[in-house]
Amino acid sequence: MSNKQIIYTTPPAPAIDPSLTSGTFRLNTIPIPKDVPTDKLLVRVHYLSLDPAMRQWLTAKRSYIAPVEQGAVMRGQSIAQVLVVGSDLTSKYSKGDWVVAGSGWQEYAVVDAKEAQKVTVPAGGRPTDAMSVLGMTGLTAYFGMVEIAQVKKGDTVVVSGAAGATGMVAGQIARIKGAKRVVGLAGSKEKCDFLVKELGFDAAVNYKDSDWRKQLKIATPEYIDVFFDNTGGDILDACLARAAQNSRFAICGAISQYNAAKPQGPASFMSVISQRITLKGFIVFDFVKQYSAALQELGSWLAEGKLKRKEHIVPGGLEAAPQGLIDLYAGANTGKMMVEVAPVSEALGPKAKL
Amino acid sequence: MSNKQIIYTTPPAPAIDPSLTSGTFRLNTIPIPKDVPTDKLLVRVHYLSLDPAMRQWLTAKRSYIAPVEQGAVMRGQSIAQVLVVGSDLTSKYSKGDWVVAGSGWQEYAVVDAKEAQKVTVPAGGRPTDAMSVLGMTGLTAYFGMVEIAQVKKGDTVVVSGAAGATGMVAGQIARIKGAKRVVGLAGSKEKCDFLVKELGFDAAVNYKDSDWRKQLKIATPEYIDVFFDNTGGDILDACLARAAQNSRFAICGAISQYNAAKPQGPASFMSVISQRITLKGFIVFDFVKQYSAALQELGSWLAEGKLKRKEHIVPGGLEAAPQGLIDLYAGANTGKMMVEVAPVSEALGPKAKL
Repeated sequence: MSNKQIIYTTPPAPAIDPSLTSGTFRLNTIPIPKDVPTDKLLVRVHYLSLDPAMRQWLTAKRSYIAPVEQGAVMRGQSIAQVLVVGSDLTSKYSKGDWVVAGSGWQEYAVVDAKEAQKVTVPAGGRPTDAMSVLGMTGLTAYFGMVEIAQVKKGDTVVVSGAAGATGMVAGQIARIKGAKRVVGLAGSKEKCDFLVKELGFDAAVNYKDSDWRKQLKIATPEYIDVFFDNTGGDILDACLARAAQNSRFAICGAISQYNAAKPQGPASFMSVISQRITLKGFIVFDFVKQYSAALQELGSWLAEGKLKRKEHIVPGGLEAAPQGLIDLYAGANTGKMMVEVAPVSEALGPKAKL
Repeated sequence: MSNKQIIYTTPPAPAIDPSLTSGTFRLNTIPIPKDVPTDKLLVRVHYLSLDPAMRQWLTAKRSYIAPVEQGAVMRGQSIAQVLVVGSDLTSKYSKGDWVVAGSGWQEYAVVDAKEAQKVTVPAGGRPTDAMSVLGMTGLTAYFGMVEIAQVKKGDTVVVSGAAGATGMVAGQIARIKGAKRVVGLAGSKEKCDFLVKELGFDAAVNYKDSDWRKQLKIATPEYIDVFFDNTGGDILDACLARAAQNSRFAICGAISQYNAAKPQGPASFMSVISQRITLKGFIVFDFVKQYSAALQELGSWLAEGKLKRKEHIVPGGLEAAPQGLIDLYAGANTGKMMVEVAPVSEALGPKAKL
């Protein structure tokens, strides 16, 4: 049996090229490892996560994480199933366990125990939630909204990338925490309808409409107290110009800028002074000690129906990952985007209930 | 006797035009008011303050203060002497008192009592300090460095506009509060020498040198923990790129951008996320309840010789104010810039000890 891998070969310049022969990545096929070291697990990848941060991992700038080396398997997390348990780990893992694994972009991976969090489903959750609303994206939304933006009762809250995996949770948390008005920015009418009709946002603005700045103004009659930013660029700029006094801007991501050869700074930056705005960047990993408490709260909101989840599954196997990543930056997804590397029907045993 | 006034007539487009006949301002001459209302003071202006914020007061954007109306006397503070005391105010003011007055740009002004803070000189101070190190600029430096940036022992601190009235105090406060390294950015070799040799900065970088970014890097071997920004633009950008993790950026001003037709956002904004930077804008007026405690501390540092002051007096009377303001934006000053509207030798009585 063989293991397909996607290898990072060529830095994007600046866009990612999806060709697996002449592009950013290359397809590689090797045998599935036979010998699993005693302190490791062999896992099979079923769902591969696609994340906005990935573009940043390909460039060598000073960041919170080292860049992926050229020639290495592309970095990524997945929902995977344990096939072989190294002899030192048999008390902790069993064949057939589902894990969130730091597998990288490949069909099979040998991983350390610390790179394989067993999926334990809290009340209200389901296994794939471990990579979305009860995983990194949900936690990012939680700490950004609660700890960084310190959302409070009566706030007008705006979320950019609001139909994305993190944004949709962030907006819902704002509502749960008593925000007076929750407004989302997204890139299509369908996404905007989803935010208002399915998730209960008060308003949603399609930033591809020519009059989106005017729509944003109308949607925020009392200005913006909290902005949860996933996009940067023009949207950050417009929200700075619309900021209320003493507003808090949680800077989570800047997806509009990741592929830019020359990043664009927010031209309305001077509002920071006149409106006494606090902008604070953050990385979810800084809150690791608070993960379990946050997951409990997120899980209870799911169980109570206060928090809704949405996934966007990309078909086509591992080879679909590069184009999927490009589509993520183009905003093709509503909710958490993942590539189906192997369907659940191929999973082992009775635990395969995704 | 006549009273000269400078009237704001024409919005800058975007630069200030110094002509007093066809420019941004117009000279007006009226009689000195004879009748002083019972609740007001007639004051004579001696030293008129020139402040970076003034350019912003001329534009109609949403700000912390209403813009100056076209046709009105230009707004400004001054060190002035009381000539006539309205009959309701005789218990609080005497003829000959020195005040910091919201006089505007004119030789004589009738002002409310609330627009005329009597100059009381704390230990270590002198009367003109009331408009600089013991006035708004000193307080701005104090609250920006202590409350917003929360400077602490061991920090590497960078100050832009470091030879300006606020910057030079901000840098000295950082040193007093235990910063490990204090680095200033200024616009000439003379200013840089002044910062290092007279004020005890560890290093100073002339941002007009072609290799200033490299110099800044060398001057901050352990990155930047605190940045006190008066300039914005390229300097803010370079400091974002040089920020340490969890650094604090106190955004005080953006003098490089005030005259720009199209303001420039910081291109390195994405460091905010990777380095978890907090940027916080502030306005000194928000700290009014803490003024007296801060002034006491600033005064004691002056008395102990820990804090040094520097003034830049523009000669030529009231008419010199528009060009003085232009020179301020060009960085002509070292220290607090003020226009000598009337020399101290013309002041009344024995209290005239400026």
